Amino acid sequence: MSNTRIADIRVTPIAFADPPLLNNAGCHEPFALRSIIEVETDGGVVGLGESYGTKPVLAGLEAVAPRLVGRDITDLNGLWRVCRSALGEGPDQRLLPRIVGAIEVACWDAFGKATGRRVCDLLGGQVRDAVPFSAYLFYKFARHHGAQEGDTWGEVLTPEQMVDEARAMIDAHGFQAIKLKAGVFEPAEEIAALHALRAAFPKAPLRIDPNAGWHVHTTLKHLPELTGLLEYLEDPTLGIPAMALVQAATDIPLATNMCIVHTDDLAPGLSAGAARVILSDHHYWGGLQACRELARICAVWDIGLSMHSNSHLGISLAAMTHLAAATPNLTYDCDTHYPWQVDEVIVGGKLPFKGGSLGVPDGPGLGIELDRDALARLHDNYLTCGITTRDDASEMRKHWPDFAAMRPRF
Amino acid sequence: MSNTRIADIRVTPIAFADPPLLNNAGCHEPFALRSIIEVETDGGVVGLGESYGTKPVLAGLEAVAPRLVGRDITDLNGLWRVCRSALGEGPDQRLLPRIVGAIEVACWDAFGKATGRRVCDLLGGQVRDAVPFSAYLFYKFARHHGAQEGDTWGEVLTPEQMVDEARAMIDAHGFQAIKLKAGVFEPAEEIAALHALRAAFPKAPLRIDPNAGWHVHTTLKHLPELTGLLEYLEDPTLGIPAMALVQAATDIPLATNMCIVHTDDLAPGLSAGAARVILSDHHYWGGLQACRELARICAVWDIGLSMHSNSHLGISLAAMTHLAAATPNLTYDCDTHYPWQVDEVIVGGKLPFKGGSLGVPDGPGLGIELDRDALARLHDNYLTCGITTRDDASEMRKHWPDFAAMRPRF
Repeated sequence: MSNTRIADIRVTPIAFADPPLLNNAGCHEPFALRSIIEVETDGGVVGLGESYGTKPVLAGLEAVAPRLVGRDITDLNGLWRVCRSALGEGPDQRLLPRIVGAIEVACWDAFGKATGRRVCDLLGGQVRDAVPFSAYLFYKFARHHGAQEGDTWGEVLTPEQMVDEARAMIDAHGFQAIKLKAGVFEPAEEIAALHALRAAFPKAPLRIDPNAGWHVHTTLKHLPELTGLLEYLEDPTLGIPAMALVQAATDIPLATNMCIVHTDDLAPGLSAGAARVILSDHHYWGGLQACRELARICAVWDIGLSMHSNSHLGISLAAMTHLAAATPNLTYDCDTHYPWQVDEVIVGGKLPFKGGSLGVPDGPGLGIELDRDALARLHDNYLTCGITTRDDASEMRKHWPDFAAMRPRF
Repeated sequence: MSNTRIADIRVTPIAFADPPLLNNAGCHEPFALRSIIEVETDGGVVGLGESYGTKPVLAGLEAVAPRLVGRDITDLNGLWRVCRSALGEGPDQRLLPRIVGAIEVACWDAFGKATGRRVCDLLGGQVRDAVPFSAYLFYKFARHHGAQEGDTWGEVLTPEQMVDEARAMIDAHGFQAIKLKAGVFEPAEEIAALHALRAAFPKAPLRIDPNAGWHVHTTLKHLPELTGLLEYLEDPTLGIPAMALVQAATDIPLATNMCIVHTDDLAPGLSAGAARVILSDHHYWGGLQACRELARICAVWDIGLSMHSNSHLGISLAAMTHLAAATPNLTYDCDTHYPWQVDEVIVGGKLPFKGGSLGVPDGPGLGIELDRDALARLHDNYLTCGITTRDDASEMRKHWPDFAAMRPRF
């Protein structure tokens, strides 16, 4: 092998505009943070990755990057080994797969570019022409605290406003399935929003995600109203034992990206019956290969599979799309925050959904290019926005001074 | 992508000389059957595979081969889909992964040759310089029934003869661990052979494989004599429930290549606690990628991992070595029948063990080449030997007329 050794890894933190979206933990701040990763080979190929932009992740990436110079981009076993060694046995076991995942995607992109192959081809081959995504609905304020102007979405705090939001998003992008981010208001109020969505979109598969905001007894009380309404109920409550109690009481599949989020959770989570759907996410499971293995485990254990999302730009979306396109057992439409973002960091601007789906970008690797002017502008945002970690609770208290983070809350 | 589409798949059945080795099912016949698979791309690269040579496998390979023409060698999802469709819903669910595995290895070899990469690099990267194998000991007759001449190993039917066999094999190849193929004689007699091996090789990790020849009560009775003697006890008895009963009664890890042999066995087998070690085998699990996923499942579920073997030649050994070299959690030395075979089908003859281990062959792909003269000779053997399926029981009755296949026997 030659020309595919890592010569340099560059990590650029960025901040992009984010609307005041609500969730159980609080309210999105005016800027969301990400990191843009460039892995350059000794053959001059540059692979792209996008991941979290919070301080611990940036520090982790800085710690591992120099140690990876000279390694081959296909050496995923070595990538895990070097990252494990560089990060040590820190208190947060979730950091290692985040660091590996950030770099691993850029390695796949570089390998694809070096060999003239698309990432989905390297991941086992494309199984669907386009990847379906869901309409990811949020309660939201009209504008950020102290801001003069709001966004085009306006205030969404009632069932009627939520239906309007759904209509705007579906008109723009064509999504088929609808996901309601919940855990903000009393469950009865949020279930009323679900019923309003059901009436407005009679055929749309519906999901609700209280983000572990409900107690077990609250969840059990509301199960009868949810039966027949949902394709899945995502993380109503917190932790494997609580989720297993709920799953044992209902035929509604429980989905999770909160109680099974690491390989260590798989054996206990699956044996407890804590969920029937796992929302995978290459950003925190350890990259595309790790998610490919997770998908295989879901297939073998007869667990449904969908995809989780945080606020992200086009590099992440391209990686999610290649992965999903090569995953035979993707059983539900993927989540994405992408319609909520107006900024972009790739050449050509936002990737377009058609009928709620995204085709695999053309060209080798991920099929996208970095817009260096946009990168510079978003990096400047990062330097000036004053945010270095995500704190939805403090942001929420600017709007609702009595807000306290509580999980479960209801 | 270009130059990596499948232009032709050639399957050549071969038969090679095999000694009269004994097992629970009977005695090896004078010839063992294999198939040699060549996947040629439109770029003129030829990838090599080796698999079973019995009638159902040859028929399966013939059925799928023409349907794969035009597909890319990296399209493993497509390979599974086409094979599943071509083979239909036959009565034997074990056939599909065998057919996929046979072709998939040749695709990896071709992809490696097309991109100048070793297969172990494409499987995630080399994690060990050399792959350790075990000394695979068999009871055996001095010569095949009706034969004038025997082999160099002579008769091995007593503990003393077994120690001599072990010494010859270890002197020749340097193996560290010792595996005794059992289920032939009364358990007490075979355990006496284990004790003789322990005395002669005080530090060698020992394994015994009765091939499911023992009843549960027989196994439970003998557990005290085995405790402290074995690194693992392989398939003492038949099926997940019986294995789980034994595993619950002992701290000796049970290993299996009989009760967890298919992805459908994983969830029931692991949840029952039927074994603590899985012997993987790319020939029947569906190829190298399937075994990579199996290895990951073993890592996540904290299950030990080793490698199973049937009688095979150098292409299979090279594939096993690349796979094992790229598998971080290979926790036990691999099995191989290779020292029992004198024939070879690759250029340069037999691959040499050093200290019981085999280095990854140099060069792209699997790092080996087909010896076309040897292939022609071994194919001629196939045409003239009169064997088209494996039948150890009938062969055994030529020696022991009263022999009846029975599992469990003791």
